[in-house]
Amino acid sequence: MSVTPQQPAVTVLGLGPMGRALTGAFLAAGVRTTVWNRTPGREGDLTERGAVTAASAAEAVAASPLTVICMVNYDATDAVLRQDAVTAALKGRVLVNLSADTPGRARDTGAWAGEHGVRYLDGAIMTPAGTIGSPAGVFLFSGPAGTYEEHRPVLDALGGTHTHLGEEISRAAAFDIALLDVFWTSMAGYVHALALAGAEGVSPRELAPFAAGIAQILPPLFEEFAGDVEDGTYSGAINPLTSGVSSMAHVVHAAEDHAIDSGVMRAVEGLARRTVALGHGADGFSRVAEVLRRR
Amino acid sequence: MSVTPQQPAVTVLGLGPMGRALTGAFLAAGVRTTVWNRTPGREGDLTERGAVTAASAAEAVAASPLTVICMVNYDATDAVLRQDAVTAALKGRVLVNLSADTPGRARDTGAWAGEHGVRYLDGAIMTPAGTIGSPAGVFLFSGPAGTYEEHRPVLDALGGTHTHLGEEISRAAAFDIALLDVFWTSMAGYVHALALAGAEGVSPRELAPFAAGIAQILPPLFEEFAGDVEDGTYSGAINPLTSGVSSMAHVVHAAEDHAIDSGVMRAVEGLARRTVALGHGADGFSRVAEVLRRR
Repeated sequence: MSVTPQQPAVTVLGLGPMGRALTGAFLAAGVRTTVWNRTPGREGDLTERGAVTAASAAEAVAASPLTVICMVNYDATDAVLRQDAVTAALKGRVLVNLSADTPGRARDTGAWAGEHGVRYLDGAIMTPAGTIGSPAGVFLFSGPAGTYEEHRPVLDALGGTHTHLGEEISRAAAFDIALLDVFWTSMAGYVHALALAGAEGVSPRELAPFAAGIAQILPPLFEEFAGDVEDGTYSGAINPLTSGVSSMAHVVHAAEDHAIDSGVMRAVEGLARRTVALGHGADGFSRVAEVLRRR
Repeated sequence: MSVTPQQPAVTVLGLGPMGRALTGAFLAAGVRTTVWNRTPGREGDLTERGAVTAASAAEAVAASPLTVICMVNYDATDAVLRQDAVTAALKGRVLVNLSADTPGRARDTGAWAGEHGVRYLDGAIMTPAGTIGSPAGVFLFSGPAGTYEEHRPVLDALGGTHTHLGEEISRAAAFDIALLDVFWTSMAGYVHALALAGAEGVSPRELAPFAAGIAQILPPLFEEFAGDVEDGTYSGAINPLTSGVSSMAHVVHAAEDHAIDSGVMRAVEGLARRTVALGHGADGFSRVAEVLRRR
């Protein structure tokens, strides 16, 4: 492979399933890719496909103007990035952290980057490793718009949809955890529904298409609730909390009659009952968003 | 309005928002509709639109071959249906209970109906009152197929999609509560996400379209999880529980840093951690459905 000055180059730190997928997508797009992993030997077939293996994280960083790091969390990325040699190598270069963690950790990393002259973008990958390099990938970024625009052509090699959410460094992580919140809570409701339906003789494959119908009615409700919360309206005209509480109680009773652990729905019902007790029984369930944040 | 023997006729017991919507849809479809409500005066404009008001529930039942009852729960419907005069009037007629309650209450009502010669269908309305009479309505039924087929032309006046789920009387209620489980848990995740995003400076209307994106990825995952649970595969190749637990912990930490009540996500995380501790960390989150039902 001949390297010309025009060829874009990137370094990938971390070769877990996601780091390997990122590397594969960069290589497929013709980006010169240098890789490093704390535990050696994780390159798999990436070397055969053209990836350059660096002997150290600092050497890897020095090989490219742009470093993408993707590890299990920010404890792991800190352990690599905050070594003196690595920090020194990053000075003046661009670092994109695609690991998942809290907005607070993104702010902390942003502050560290600022102190050490590292040009920093924070990011989040919203879709599984299998989507990387395909149109199904979803990437969120935050940090300086100029830095993002400059490196967008290389990042675009990852495929899918890329959104720059703003300059505030914690924005990508804030969206990420809020969306994981929706995702995991919904999946918890679904596995509980599968357990409950199963105890009632309804098979998982019978329930699934109807559950998909529920997922399909969520987006307009999400939009309506967003308006309710942003404007403080909390309309319960269609579905007041008092009626929702009754539904939730039916779910808990039916599940517990079958000795199914119903702690999640009990917590949901408890929130709704507390909101009713606070005088909001005629409001919609959107009122709970406000109650959750009360001090 | 002239009544011919060919004109279909129905009785509606209960004139809450849903009962009024059902009556309106029957009237709009030219069905002769007799109504009764425990508290008089709830007819609104239904009488002007042709509804016949009965002086008692028994008289209302006697006016039509088919009675549809829709009240807050089965305590309320029992209080009406199990009066001697009403039970006597229902003998040999068809009763459709569209109230919401547990599968156990549906079985209990089915047994009572069998003992008293009442031809009984249980049903569930999956969509708000505003959808009744429109293509957006979703109705589930269970009970004898012959009874359902016979009265389907009148029930079709309610519009939307009607599904007969089988002869077992509790099937409609089982689907209903399982789907309410998915619905309310998902909405609880969303209001928590709105609270968390808000605390991080992300407005509800900014988050909503991304949350809608999450809802859109659920149907294929629901199908995949259904296969996992039905076949006992629980594949964690794409997203093992150990990695999910880490995401959930980020959500809890970020929310609790802002003093946001995170009981629901704590319950989800607890379930996932318990499932990991039981030795299923390499499985997918679908394994939780099996753990929830363990004895």
